[in-house]
Amino acid sequence: MARPRIKDVARLAGVSEKTVSNVINDYEHVSDRTRAAVRQAIDELGYRVNLAGRHLRRGRTGIIALILPELDFSYFGEVATHVIAEAERRGLTVLVHQTLADRQHELTALDGFGSDFVDGLLMSPLALTADDVAERGGHLPVVLLGELIQEGADHVAIDNVLATREATEHLVGMGRRSIVAVGGKEAGGPEPATTGTAQVRTRGFREALQTAGLPYDPAAVLPVRQFRTPDGAAAVERYLAAGHKPDAILCLNDQMALGTLRTLHERGLRVPEDVAVVGFDDVEAGRFSVPSLTTVAPDKAAVARVAVELLVDRIAARAEGLPPLPPRNRVVPHRLVVRESTGGPR
Amino acid sequence: MARPRIKDVARLAGVSEKTVSNVINDYEHVSDRTRAAVRQAIDELGYRVNLAGRHLRRGRTGIIALILPELDFSYFGEVATHVIAEAERRGLTVLVHQTLADRQHELTALDGFGSDFVDGLLMSPLALTADDVAERGGHLPVVLLGELIQEGADHVAIDNVLATREATEHLVGMGRRSIVAVGGKEAGGPEPATTGTAQVRTRGFREALQTAGLPYDPAAVLPVRQFRTPDGAAAVERYLAAGHKPDAILCLNDQMALGTLRTLHERGLRVPEDVAVVGFDDVEAGRFSVPSLTTVAPDKAAVARVAVELLVDRIAARAEGLPPLPPRNRVVPHRLVVRESTGGPR
Repeated sequence: MARPRIKDVARLAGVSEKTVSNVINDYEHVSDRTRAAVRQAIDELGYRVNLAGRHLRRGRTGIIALILPELDFSYFGEVATHVIAEAERRGLTVLVHQTLADRQHELTALDGFGSDFVDGLLMSPLALTADDVAERGGHLPVVLLGELIQEGADHVAIDNVLATREATEHLVGMGRRSIVAVGGKEAGGPEPATTGTAQVRTRGFREALQTAGLPYDPAAVLPVRQFRTPDGAAAVERYLAAGHKPDAILCLNDQMALGTLRTLHERGLRVPEDVAVVGFDDVEAGRFSVPSLTTVAPDKAAVARVAVELLVDRIAARAEGLPPLPPRNRVVPHRLVVRESTGGPR
Repeated sequence: MARPRIKDVARLAGVSEKTVSNVINDYEHVSDRTRAAVRQAIDELGYRVNLAGRHLRRGRTGIIALILPELDFSYFGEVATHVIAEAERRGLTVLVHQTLADRQHELTALDGFGSDFVDGLLMSPLALTADDVAERGGHLPVVLLGELIQEGADHVAIDNVLATREATEHLVGMGRRSIVAVGGKEAGGPEPATTGTAQVRTRGFREALQTAGLPYDPAAVLPVRQFRTPDGAAAVERYLAAGHKPDAILCLNDQMALGTLRTLHERGLRVPEDVAVVGFDDVEAGRFSVPSLTTVAPDKAAVARVAVELLVDRIAARAEGLPPLPPRNRVVPHRLVVRESTGGPR
């Protein structure tokens, strides 16, 4: 008898090939009964599911690449740690590549580095468009992380507009009326490494102000070159030096918020009494800053788990010769963590 | 005429093959005269030095791997960024792998991930010994980064004992007499991810106290599980809760120092008036913390430049069929940066 294939398992278990693949890849959303049926069929047929065997067939290496803009950015470092843990749980090795949001670097990664040692890519692209991924990424399974809306490819993100709206509503609910956002696109500057993030988060800020009946002044979105600590500190310093007196500052990431806390301290302004501050990302440093930082906490473990699931799925489908899966968008949870910078508990 | 080789260039220029390799790899320590002679010989012979060609010969891929313990650790993220910039300047692509200081992960990396897509490794090992590298790393060029003394392999680091001595002397010079260090090895716990660092930095602390005629109490080296922010915060909290009243705290890295600042703030102690704090690594967050953090600043750009130089050198020697180079130790500069946490300027 010929070596049993995934379709033989599916037929015997009375399920689809996709469901067999889900069981093999240890997905969560398979009922216990279905899982048992598939496992029994696998046993009966002697279908080989061991990882080493799967890697060897069709030249699989068991290596995936994680493509990130900046490695010295706390948020990406923390996401990478979750992705690596999740991938290793599935017997995959992760190699990380930094693109600095450079289009050429992103294309090189999409091309598998001109070699064939990676089975697939998890990618947080900033310069590439969905069309690039669709047109040029055909030969490698790819899953995208991040804020840009990518219709043509698998994509995992939190609901950034909703999250920023909630953070703004928290400030409005404290009675703050003169709220500025830090992290707009710098006019005339180079395309910041965070265009998509700035776009979707600024939209949430604007929507929340409008819902609250507060005026939205585009000048109250302070532009930055990069989403980094010194940029946040400098943007707020310029704004205060011009004589503005905001009572709340919404920073579109935590690193800019940490710079903002520093600037407010240097100007003798109390946080949150004079100015309340909110960040975004829930990086470790914001839990220990003085004051500690209120922030939007994406479920980073869920980002990692779902992204690796989608990629493993796509790699397995390709290895089994199944037709390519349609692009999938997955939204993972977030929550607002209230700390000292907006009057939360110590 | 046969394709000219590096030995033909060396003969014509009247220099060693090593010198030709240095010029090709754009080293700094070659005189202008020698460099000109080598370039002229390269031109006359039509020796091909273009990078693509060099990568293709002998199966070179132009990819090196950077092997680090933890990607969500600010210091490693910053070093990685420097290494990547330096490697890219030389046309090399860097892939980063996280080991979590696990011996099996480090061995897998040393083995080139069971494949042949990397030309060499830059590695910050915590579980492997020099003997491992000598015995098991034979087939790939390797350069080590970090604090462990590694006699059997290329190695780049700052003088950690001297640096910690200077940091301690700075506290003694401020009149502080009751100085504790944070970052000792936890007794009975798992081997911390930083054994070598704890060893060499604790030695510098002890030596400085003895030189100053101050008592050295091993109990004043507070043990931690990991060199991370929560560990630093918790170790100092335990120490203060036991009734101790130090007037200075030397943290063996910045992340623990940021946790220490938080604990002192929660206990209502003023920094530096009541307790002075020093860190190590000069990570970005310490420039913006409240108060800003005095720290030992390793020249990270130099670490990266020298490490990539040594590796490129070793890869080139191998590609040219030269005998293996003997192990080289390189010490790069550091300096103490005095900020608010020890009374420095705002």
